Amino acid sequence: MTLLRVQMTNGQIVAEPFPKEKILGGRATIDFLLSQRGAPAAHPLSERSIFLVAPGLFAGSGAPQSGRLSVGGKSPLTGGIKEANVGGTASHKLGRLGIRAILAEGTSKERQVLKIDKEGARLENAGDIVGLTNYAACDKIRQRYGENVGILIIGPAGEMKLANSTVAVTDPEGRPSRHAARGGVGALMGAKGLKAIVVDDEGGSLRKGANEEAFKEATKSAAEAIQNGPFRNAFHNLGTPMFIDMDNARGSMPTNNHRIGSFEKVQKINVAKLVELNKARGGSMGHGCMPGCVVRCSPIFHGPDGKFVTAGFEYETIVMLGANLGIDDLDAIARMDRRCDELGLDTIEMGCTIGVLNDAGMFAFGDAGKAEALIEEIAQGTPLGRILGSGVAVTAKVFGIDRVPEVKGQGIPAHAARSSKGWAVTYATSPQGADHTAGAVLEDPLSPVGQVDRSRKQQILMAALDATGLCQFTFLPPKLIVPMINGLHGVNWSVEDYLEMGREMLRQERAFNLKAGIGPGADRLPEWMKNEPLAPTNAVFDVPDQEIDGLFNF
Amino acid sequence: MTLLRVQMTNGQIVAEPFPKEKILGGRATIDFLLSQRGAPAAHPLSERSIFLVAPGLFAGSGAPQSGRLSVGGKSPLTGGIKEANVGGTASHKLGRLGIRAILAEGTSKERQVLKIDKEGARLENAGDIVGLTNYAACDKIRQRYGENVGILIIGPAGEMKLANSTVAVTDPEGRPSRHAARGGVGALMGAKGLKAIVVDDEGGSLRKGANEEAFKEATKSAAEAIQNGPFRNAFHNLGTPMFIDMDNARGSMPTNNHRIGSFEKVQKINVAKLVELNKARGGSMGHGCMPGCVVRCSPIFHGPDGKFVTAGFEYETIVMLGANLGIDDLDAIARMDRRCDELGLDTIEMGCTIGVLNDAGMFAFGDAGKAEALIEEIAQGTPLGRILGSGVAVTAKVFGIDRVPEVKGQGIPAHAARSSKGWAVTYATSPQGADHTAGAVLEDPLSPVGQVDRSRKQQILMAALDATGLCQFTFLPPKLIVPMINGLHGVNWSVEDYLEMGREMLRQERAFNLKAGIGPGADRLPEWMKNEPLAPTNAVFDVPDQEIDGLFNF
Repeated sequence: MTLLRVQMTNGQIVAEPFPKEKILGGRATIDFLLSQRGAPAAHPLSERSIFLVAPGLFAGSGAPQSGRLSVGGKSPLTGGIKEANVGGTASHKLGRLGIRAILAEGTSKERQVLKIDKEGARLENAGDIVGLTNYAACDKIRQRYGENVGILIIGPAGEMKLANSTVAVTDPEGRPSRHAARGGVGALMGAKGLKAIVVDDEGGSLRKGANEEAFKEATKSAAEAIQNGPFRNAFHNLGTPMFIDMDNARGSMPTNNHRIGSFEKVQKINVAKLVELNKARGGSMGHGCMPGCVVRCSPIFHGPDGKFVTAGFEYETIVMLGANLGIDDLDAIARMDRRCDELGLDTIEMGCTIGVLNDAGMFAFGDAGKAEALIEEIAQGTPLGRILGSGVAVTAKVFGIDRVPEVKGQGIPAHAARSSKGWAVTYATSPQGADHTAGAVLEDPLSPVGQVDRSRKQQILMAALDATGLCQFTFLPPKLIVPMINGLHGVNWSVEDYLEMGREMLRQERAFNLKAGIGPGADRLPEWMKNEPLAPTNAVFDVPDQEIDGLFNF
Repeated sequence: MTLLRVQMTNGQIVAEPFPKEKILGGRATIDFLLSQRGAPAAHPLSERSIFLVAPGLFAGSGAPQSGRLSVGGKSPLTGGIKEANVGGTASHKLGRLGIRAILAEGTSKERQVLKIDKEGARLENAGDIVGLTNYAACDKIRQRYGENVGILIIGPAGEMKLANSTVAVTDPEGRPSRHAARGGVGALMGAKGLKAIVVDDEGGSLRKGANEEAFKEATKSAAEAIQNGPFRNAFHNLGTPMFIDMDNARGSMPTNNHRIGSFEKVQKINVAKLVELNKARGGSMGHGCMPGCVVRCSPIFHGPDGKFVTAGFEYETIVMLGANLGIDDLDAIARMDRRCDELGLDTIEMGCTIGVLNDAGMFAFGDAGKAEALIEEIAQGTPLGRILGSGVAVTAKVFGIDRVPEVKGQGIPAHAARSSKGWAVTYATSPQGADHTAGAVLEDPLSPVGQVDRSRKQQILMAALDATGLCQFTFLPPKLIVPMINGLHGVNWSVEDYLEMGREMLRQERAFNLKAGIGPGADRLPEWMKNEPLAPTNAVFDVPDQEIDGLFNF
């Protein structure tokens, strides 16, 4: 396996052998490379900063639903470490070409496309793709490089180096609907001068196990477990939007700028409504973002005219651009999602950002037209647009807003912190900033008791899982994952070894943040969440600071 | 002495006795109150945050040149602790009324004036002062409250809660020419709903020493030392602008966005030019910002028509709005200074902010008209103006600029870091962010050797001095200051006790920052200063990180 080092300043590309003894993938690769070669004190957008792409441990193999791809570096949004992962088709293609990671350094003045195939890798002038929105750019790229390539791409937001910008990855239909969304990784890629990475695995080969028989057997067990998983049908039929009614009922669905925990107009944006519209218009509920997916959790949404509007229309997006803005119009929410996909903007951060403008009198809850117009400001690159594209913390700072739903500069996602206290501990403490995938805790959501322990356990599990490239909706327990690692990589890990990898990743991430100036005191939810009750549960966040400070004692 | 607690939410004012055993003034009072009652994890602009004003240890007494006033809280600019101090007339007036500190908490929806006189303190609706620029507002206040009041006031920038906004204090002529400028203390005051604090000391009394005879004697010695100080005449005749030629010659005068260390057109903005224009137009060099000042370092500048333009036309302002922007026109620089004084903007931060726009193609060095127009954007409160009014770090983030002259979010002042290496260590490590008064080091500016030790010593000395309210241009050594403290306060401090106060202040400031999430890793100059040589000395910043990390080992 190789580490592809791309020196953007002079165009030199070197394929280094990746240290054999390092069994690393995805987020673990990002953490390792940032610890070894990162510049924690440098500006994220500077030449000294590095941009990383890393497929998971199983990329290129037959392990089921293991095609998640990690993208990372020093976050332009938080100033700390950042790994954002994403489904789509690119990860397995990179794996089949034997690539463990891509490291881009320096910067190119002209925007480039990095083309990777079995002949190697080269930089090509991005030409007329520059400035295009993601769907149009991917059309052109497929025309230029073939229908079957996998694409990583930044939209205009990433080209503008805005701190809320994504790296999109194409789904099996070639649409840039999947996003490594959080922390401004699009700006990192943009600062390197990269518009797209195009991966053609024609002629590449399926990765075989070092112990192929054991790997096949482990793979079979895992596939069966996924196939028989208790939530598989629910995910397939309802997708992540099924959480809308659930979170709304629990009072943990951010509504009106995180002011309420449920939305009175929920029936106009919930999964029943979505299924109804999809039936009438020809959208679908069960789309898989990576080849071979059997969970297929992701809805595709069509407009009133029956035409495709957006794919990857997820819980987080519908809540943050819907309920959190008081917007009850699924069509408008879908248009905003599409626009964010086109421009390369994280919908969670966007929803937080527009939400706080209510406090400055610049947005009224429920005004979908205004919300759409504000996103257009970003497309146009106006000063207002650039502010909004810089995320919720900067927007609040510029407009003098003091009630800001963010941790470490990153907007708080769609499971309300005060009424999901375990999840909130993860938001507060994750080295990634407030993150919905860094360690979900569902138990006993209104009680502060035991949440630090639960969050610790989940953060370790999720870190390890983010190394594998497995989708979290496989719900595979470590004892089914570890045999696949052993079979593929020819090692003899125990479950404990696997968890220790997760712990070590978190240690590396904390160490990076410390070097970047972010101390443990930053492990706090916004102070107002301790005092302002969240209707209807009237919960406040009351996990003691002292307990939170013990989260990383492991 | 009392602590005036002003609850802005309900208008309640309580005069608490200040703990007698606490011999604290100025910055030491700020540090103490923030440690005791501050909310380091709360948003600076939130109701939970406190805004503080504290006269120095000698306020209200006859100690010479001891009228500096400290203003502070949690900085909206840096997110850490902030104390900014300022001359003018208010400090002694507060001292004569027996006030040790003002603490404002909560927030008032309608803007208020806090009126303080011998009858007590009360809040009054600010009425038609709201929205006025500082000079006009002070005229109205003097009409309303009398000619002899001392005024602390925020301009439109503070009312807009912009992170680069000052608290202005009136000089002996009643002009708002003196500014507690750094760290956005104006936004803190604005967030409380305070437009102005008006101090009328009519009927107040000169503070006598607990040991009056000893105090008088110590005061006399100090006054003589100031009177006979080696730099007194230079300061009086040339003011702080005398440093222009000095720093330019040493290659440590930030020019063109900190890209060069000297300015080829220096003769058009140096002190000789200033003196020449002042002679021709009726400006003056030797203005004192507080009553009784014998140093009188501060120039007043008149326009081509002979009319007053600005007072407090200092080195930092002329360099940051002049050389650092490539602007060689003293008239334009003076107009910008006046406009910053009117709006309540820090000229150092403003100069850094406009400077970095060159990298985004939004400003060309030397274009004074454009620089003035950009400041007008702030006056108008446009999105662009609000960005620029939020300081250099936010401006850079919004416009994707990665070469940013800031530490902990605060712009780097006018003694270039790379060619003033001791000073640079202070910029890097001060809990206040990059600050020109936190510990000047002049020795051996191009050598990295010994600078950490020098900076440590100077930071301790300056912290202690900032507690006294003495102007740093008194150049009084501790052995002349301590007897005044002992005489006035009836204590028996040694010089070591005095220095220990300085150390304890720095410890408290570091502890506050830690709780606010700012770790020791933030004690770094921008990384590019290690690599980019600064002409003409071609110095890079090469004091080792490891040594820097030992600065606070005391």
